[in-house]
This record gives sequence, structure tokens and C-alpha cells, in this order.
Amino acid sequence: MKARNQNILMIASSETDANLYYATRFLAPDKFAFLQIRGKKYLLMSDVEVDRARTQACVHQIVSLSSLRTAYKRKYKKKPNFLDLVEAFLKQKRVKSLSVPANFPVQYADPLRKRGFQIAFKRDPFFEDRTIKTNPEIRAIQKALRATEAAFAQAIRAIRRSTIKKGRLYLDGQLLTSEVVKKIINVKLMEDGLVAQHTIVSCAKDTVDPHNEGSGPLYAHKPIIMDIFPRDSQSRYFADFTRTVVRGRASTKVKKMYAAVQEGQEIAFRMIRHGTDAAKIHTAIQKHFEKLGFKTGLIRGRIQGFFHGTGHGLGLDIHEPPRISPKGGILKSGNIVTVEPALYYEDAGGVRLEDVVVVTKTGCKNLTRAPKVLEI
Amino acid sequence: MKARNQNILMIASSETDANLYYATRFLAPDKFAFLQIRGKKYLLMSDVEVDRARTQACVHQIVSLSSLRTAYKRKYKKKPNFLDLVEAFLKQKRVKSLSVPANFPVQYADPLRKRGFQIAFKRDPFFEDRTIKTNPEIRAIQKALRATEAAFAQAIRAIRRSTIKKGRLYLDGQLLTSEVVKKIINVKLMEDGLVAQHTIVSCAKDTVDPHNEGSGPLYAHKPIIMDIFPRDSQSRYFADFTRTVVRGRASTKVKKMYAAVQEGQEIAFRMIRHGTDAAKIHTAIQKHFEKLGFKTGLIRGRIQGFFHGTGHGLGLDIHEPPRISPKGGILKSGNIVTVEPALYYEDAGGVRLEDVVVVTKTGCKNLTRAPKVLEI
Repeated sequence: MKARNQNILMIASSETDANLYYATRFLAPDKFAFLQIRGKKYLLMSDVEVDRARTQACVHQIVSLSSLRTAYKRKYKKKPNFLDLVEAFLKQKRVKSLSVPANFPVQYADPLRKRGFQIAFKRDPFFEDRTIKTNPEIRAIQKALRATEAAFAQAIRAIRRSTIKKGRLYLDGQLLTSEVVKKIINVKLMEDGLVAQHTIVSCAKDTVDPHNEGSGPLYAHKPIIMDIFPRDSQSRYFADFTRTVVRGRASTKVKKMYAAVQEGQEIAFRMIRHGTDAAKIHTAIQKHFEKLGFKTGLIRGRIQGFFHGTGHGLGLDIHEPPRISPKGGILKSGNIVTVEPALYYEDAGGVRLEDVVVVTKTGCKNLTRAPKVLEI
Repeated sequence: MKARNQNILMIASSETDANLYYATRFLAPDKFAFLQIRGKKYLLMSDVEVDRARTQACVHQIVSLSSLRTAYKRKYKKKPNFLDLVEAFLKQKRVKSLSVPANFPVQYADPLRKRGFQIAFKRDPFFEDRTIKTNPEIRAIQKALRATEAAFAQAIRAIRRSTIKKGRLYLDGQLLTSEVVKKIINVKLMEDGLVAQHTIVSCAKDTVDPHNEGSGPLYAHKPIIMDIFPRDSQSRYFADFTRTVVRGRASTKVKKMYAAVQEGQEIAFRMIRHGTDAAKIHTAIQKHFEKLGFKTGLIRGRIQGFFHGTGHGLGLDIHEPPRISPKGGILKSGNIVTVEPALYYEDAGGVRLEDVVVVTKTGCKNLTRAPKVLEI
């Protein structure tokens, strides 16, 4: 597929499209067109962005839309729209077939096909290279992780300082809530130049649902899951980090779950290396949980146990290939993936631990440093 | 078009797709399918989200993917993928043609068409209602604006407190930079529960490019543009706000530009009302600038003057219909739009002022309160 159709077209805003940012290293809020034709990269840019693009974008040529517009008007004696200009440029370059990303919008695909272009989409990873992190990319993710751990440390300090009254946590006389702890984390990250959204600080029953962001009072002796995944606003790379803690005493079941999840991570750390099938890692952790009696499936009409993937690629997107999940795929040296096994039961709560590792030829290197301590 | 094809399909993550969030009021990080069939709204949800969707989503029915999967396996004796389940559901509902948003991905459109479905995209506004804000929506935007103005006020206090040394600003002995002021703004917003990204605090030459986010020292006697557009993490609605200030004395040209831009806003405020063609407002401001001698076009190879739209709709997206631009369109009561005329010249810098107004039957109501003061 790669050899058959190497000419690429993307039309998007690079602020929201990681492939486009990866291809250009140029950040713009408005949509623009990127073309890769016979190995050369072109941007079609509006007047507003053309100067900034010329200094910042890592491409071979910036073509101003107004110069294309002038040429079009002269030739066709009418006012072109955006796709007219894209078409004119493609014709000028004698390109007829294009490879586009899977998220390429129908609003561009349909009219371009009507104009006679062949458009085939390619699923992610659209750029194979994006899954193989360079040293600067690894450093960017490490930097984001250090800031995330610093924000987590502040949250831990607040929870540790809290006092327990009637099973609830109080900090300096005020009820300590999920919202308060999220604010501590998010504000600290913003101070360090990272943007955190949808940070999870969930407690007790809320922890059974891995996507519940948490709200209301934090309880003693119940699991508190903190899942923090900010983006560095400079580098655009994400961190992803989860710890589970209990203020006070954890129940026997939660302690056993925590040990099982931590061992689950260790299984992954031992198995991850260049060439391993990711599905095998996920299956090994599932079997480990089952052996310990932690079953997965519907219990009283609700999915419980370990019912999400073990991990996902991390980079310019928070979730990107490769996945460590039943679907599988071969891990490669330079992949950066999360390792986040978890267990969720209605009668005990949830336990999730998440580290980020880089895959190497002989194993993996854990980029996460924060300790794993259940009771605080 | 509306009558011909009322059945709707969306497949996206509602965290990144405002139409999907608008249709469901359900926030989820992973993609899910939304269907509107003969007026009834359905969600096809994974096990992980099905419980949360049942309590939170404003739809008629939540269909669990695993129940569809079980039925599929029983019927076809094979394992279905996601689109197999979407197809099975559509067939069950006897739906053959679908309306999708303009950004609907080819990775779903192409296979669904191959399976015999007719798919037509509709440009934004996909939901006409989204452009007509309800009272709770207006209040959400007002709330976001108040927080934005509070953050701006902190930035102004810092700039006012600064001292001038050799043309640069210093705060408590430290160089006052664009980065420092952005941090003041973004951290204050995060404390109030709003997420600000790409906040602009640009100065001097950087202000000539409206998309330059600004960096480095802030200078006295030069324009400083602050453009702040955070999203309220609770309501999901955006604010959008711009002021231009000068610490010290503004040049005669900048003073004239400021007065012209402020008058440009007043022209818009007088013209905006239910039924007005937005293009006429934009043209009136352009003419006003030209009359004052502020020309728009290429000057020494660079676009200068007033070269972007006058305003845009604001809501769950930072830029949404309607636009106040040469393209035009009829304004309607309940539209919320920005009014942000501007002038940019290499020899003087840029001046932009931006308020947010709600369109009414008889005129418009300015939702922005912060004063407009050039020299501080």
C-alpha cells in the first residue's frame, strides 16, 4: 500500500490533528492543506499564516493560497473556492491518486472524488515513523512525566495532611473533595506549562468505572484512583500516569488487588521487548488475574474485573498505536507504551497502576519514577 | 435536505466533537456511535461506558455493543467488528440512507457505502439549533467570560505594577515576559475551572501576526495584544476575549488605530440584529477603516491592515457558525458571536479588540464587561 500510493493529502487544523502536526511541526488553529508529492512536502497556506509557516514549518515549500487564487482567476475567469485551489495544485503537479488518513473528512473526500481524484484512506499509524520515538521525543515525554509526578506529589501531600472524621477526609478544616485534589493537580501542571484535562481523582464506588472523573468527598480506607494525562504545551507530547492510594487502611481485598495489579505490571515489563506480540502480554496478565481468582465478566449485570486494554501508545496523541490489547500487534524498539493493568469490583472498588515504558531491543525501560505505595 | 434525510449517524469521541456532545450531552474519550432514526436518539456503547451513558446521556435508548455482538454471533456464526454492529443495528431499524456531519471520517463512510448505505454529508451548522443559544447556554458563556475577565485583570495588574527599564518591563526585579503573563492568565483560569490553551500575549512586532502567541520580553510604549479563549471544563462552553494595551505611552498611530478599531466595534454593535446580513457588517467596518486611511493588502510583500473576519459564532466550539465575514449569512436572534475588528501594520504593531454579543430581535447585547483602556 505504501509503494502503490505515496502521494499524501491532509486537510485539517494541526492543533487538533496529530498526524498533520507530526508531518509539518507547524501549529495552526485553522485548517490548511498538506501535500506530500513524490517525497516533497508542500503546504497551501492562507495569507494570515503564510509568513509564520515559512519560518516554522518543516516542509519543502509553502504555497500561498492567494498566489494560487490569482493564477486561477486569470486562467478560469472565476473566483475559486478552497477545493478549486487544491485541485489546481494537484493538477499542476500531475497527481491523480492520493493517500489520506482514516479521519479524512467526507466533505473533502466526496468532492475531490467527483473531480476525478482517487482517494484511499490508510488506518493509523498513518506515518509508521510516528510509533518509533526519537530521542528528543522520548525526552519530551519524560519531561511531561516529571511534571506529572510533581503534581501528583502535591496531591499526595494534601491527602496525607488530611484528617479523617466520620470516614471522610478534611484538609485544614475543609472537606477534601475530588474537585479540590483535581485543582491542586491541574493548577500545578499549568504552572509548569502543561495542560491537563479530564484528570481523574475518583474514590470508593466511583473507582469501579474507569472513566468516572470523580466528584464529591474523598473517603478514608477506600481506594482513590488518580489518573493524570496532561499535554506539554511546548512540546505537544503527553504524559500518562495512574496511581491508586488509600488514606488510612485498605481492605484485605483491595490489598490483594493492588498486589495482583502490580504483579500484572511486572509481567508486562518482563515480556515487553522488540518483536513481542502485544496480545500475548495482555493475555498473560488476564491469566495471572484469573489464577488469583480475579474474574472478568458481568457480575450482577455490570462488567467487572479487568475489562480494558493493558496499554496504548503515547505521543502527540494520548491514545495512539501500538495497543497492548487482545487485538495485538508486534512491538518495536522505540515504541512508547503505557502499562496499566487494573481490577474493578463493585464490592471493593478499583485499583489501577500506570507507568510509561519505551520498548528496546532487549526489553523495556520504565520512564515513570513515582513510587507505588497503597496506604498513605 | 433536512426533510429528505433525517436519519443521522455520527461516529466520534464527544470530547473532541462538539456536534456529538451537543446531540447527547454525554462526554466520553473513546469513539461511540450516535444514531437519530425517525426522531429517536440511540447510542451504541461499549461495556466500559454503558452504565455512565445510561445515567448521563440525553438520548432515548442506550444499546450495549456486547448485546449486539451476542446477537450477531448467534445469527452469523462469526465475530463482528464495530461497523458490522453498526450495520446490524441500521438493518434492524430498516435505515438505508444517512445524513452525517461534514467531518465524518472516510474510514467509516467508505465501508458503509460498500455495504449499501447512502451517506450524504451536511455542512455546519449540522444542527441548526446549535447556533441559537438557549438561556442556560448564554449563562454558561457569560460565566466563562467573567472568569476570563478576572484572569485578564490579574494580567493587567502585573503589567501596571511593572517598571520600565531601557524600554523593557520588569516585575519585582525580573524581566516581565509574554510567558510570565500567559502563566498568570492560564493558572488563574485553571483555578477557576477553565482550560486555556494557546493564550496570546504578544508584543510589538509579534502583534502584527494575529496568530503569533507571543514570546520573550514585553516592551514599554508598544502594543500588547492579549487574546484569551478558555473552555469551561464543567459546561464545555468557550469564552473569547481580546484587549490591546500599552504600558506607557502609545504612538500617535497606535492611538488612531485603537480609536478606529473601537469605532469598528461600535459599527458592528449598531448593525447586529436578527435578520442582518453579516457580510454587510464586515464590509461597513472595512469601509470605515479605509475612510480613515487604514488600507488592507500587501505592503512590502506582507499582508497588512484588516485581513481576517470581523467575528465568529461561539459556543461548544471556539469557532462555529455564523461568521461575520465577507461570505456572510443572515444573523438570527439567539446567535452568539464575537466582534473583533483589528488593524495590523508593520510600522506600528497590531490592535485588536474582541467582545462577545448575543443577537436579539432589535439589536444585540454585549456579554463582555471589561473596560477598553489603551494606555496603562
